[in-house]
Amino acid sequence: MLKSRVILAMDKPLSYQILKEMENELYGIKIGLPLVLDLGVHKTRELLNDLNVEEIIVDFKLADIGFIMKSVVEKLSFASSFIAHSFIGVKGSLDELKKYLDANSKNLYLVAVMSHEGWSTLFTDYIKNVIREISPKGIVVGGTKLDSITEYRKDFGKMTIISPGMGSQGGSYGDAVCAGANYEIIGRSIYNAENPFAALRTINKIIEDKVMNCKGAIFREK
Amino acid sequence: MLKSRVILAMDKPLSYQILKEMENELYGIKIGLPLVLDLGVHKTRELLNDLNVEEIIVDFKLADIGFIMKSVVEKLSFASSFIAHSFIGVKGSLDELKKYLDANSKNLYLVAVMSHEGWSTLFTDYIKNVIREISPKGIVVGGTKLDSITEYRKDFGKMTIISPGMGSQGGSYGDAVCAGANYEIIGRSIYNAENPFAALRTINKIIEDKVMNCKGAIFREK
Repeated sequence: MLKSRVILAMDKPLSYQILKEMENELYGIKIGLPLVLDLGVHKTRELLNDLNVEEIIVDFKLADIGFIMKSVVEKLSFASSFIAHSFIGVKGSLDELKKYLDANSKNLYLVAVMSHEGWSTLFTDYIKNVIREISPKGIVVGGTKLDSITEYRKDFGKMTIISPGMGSQGGSYGDAVCAGANYEIIGRSIYNAENPFAALRTINKIIEDKVMNCKGAIFREK
Repeated sequence: MLKSRVILAMDKPLSYQILKEMENELYGIKIGLPLVLDLGVHKTRELLNDLNVEEIIVDFKLADIGFIMKSVVEKLSFASSFIAHSFIGVKGSLDELKKYLDANSKNLYLVAVMSHEGWSTLFTDYIKNVIREISPKGIVVGGTKLDSITEYRKDFGKMTIISPGMGSQGGSYGDAVCAGANYEIIGRSIYNAENPFAALRTINKIIEDKVMNCKGAIFREK
């Protein structure tokens, strides 16, 4: 049974003790660039080293030529997965990154739709073509854009969909999963809470209740 | 008089002595994510601290929501300028970053055209609109795409254009400046050279000679 549909977006560090307390109620942890700049690579690795979560996802939203993206991910071997932008295209960029990650048994997520208002949907067809060509483990679709989640779920049946933007950015817990996402990415509402573990448990309960009552949604038990 | 049209892309560290030797023959230094992951923020700041170059440009190709991009740049106050992607759009993203950088007297460069083959030109109109709306100090146009440099130079008369992709990625030194760029970004051909300072001087000379002989190009002395 799936223990949680929550990926903690850790943009600032929580203590090892708190993370240990939370590990059984999290699917994964997403590490942002602000955290790695604060802690450095070595301390970030130490903090995450023996946590029992399914995935450690490094989210630098990579968007560079292949040579640079490979130089970045090779330094972060503690992670199981990396997020890059679809928009940058395949040749000389995502093709090289994907090949490197495959060879090192790491996963790739591609950004399909971002959560902020200014993200343009002019490029949807182009982005879907890049996703088809690269065939990543999963895609990132903003949790504030539920119609997009459902659209991408229909087009990419078995691909994992992870959705940021829940909580502080305006998405309601559980709505992204109801719309077709596998996991919801939640940051500030947990790491800024007075009691992060209690906040996580409350959110998990809200998502469970919402999912039990989704109507017409494409809900997938893994 | 302009001392050089070269921005050194330092993706891996050169020693302080070598940088000091080179400072009078460089316009600026561009710092990539691989370097900051290797050295950490503190040592990167120390390395660059009293170098006499016009600009220190942090090139993480930022492509995230405003909140995250601000969290990144606020940790890197040793830099004078930051590179972000245009394609992420304005509202909730580049608008917030621009406002923050303006308030802190920092410059923004937006990526217009990347240097790798897979970069799509389907969205040129959209990207130009974002650049007009944000009005950054400058833009980044791949030095392997000389027609694009000339096109952007015509459309954005006074904006600074910086061009990566010279040398190892296939662009010939001086061609981007001849096509309308202000500066050429050169990395591997300098930092991987046995004698980086000698390599820089040779490249500066090639660019000077080329620029003296540009035909019909939009060459701007600053």
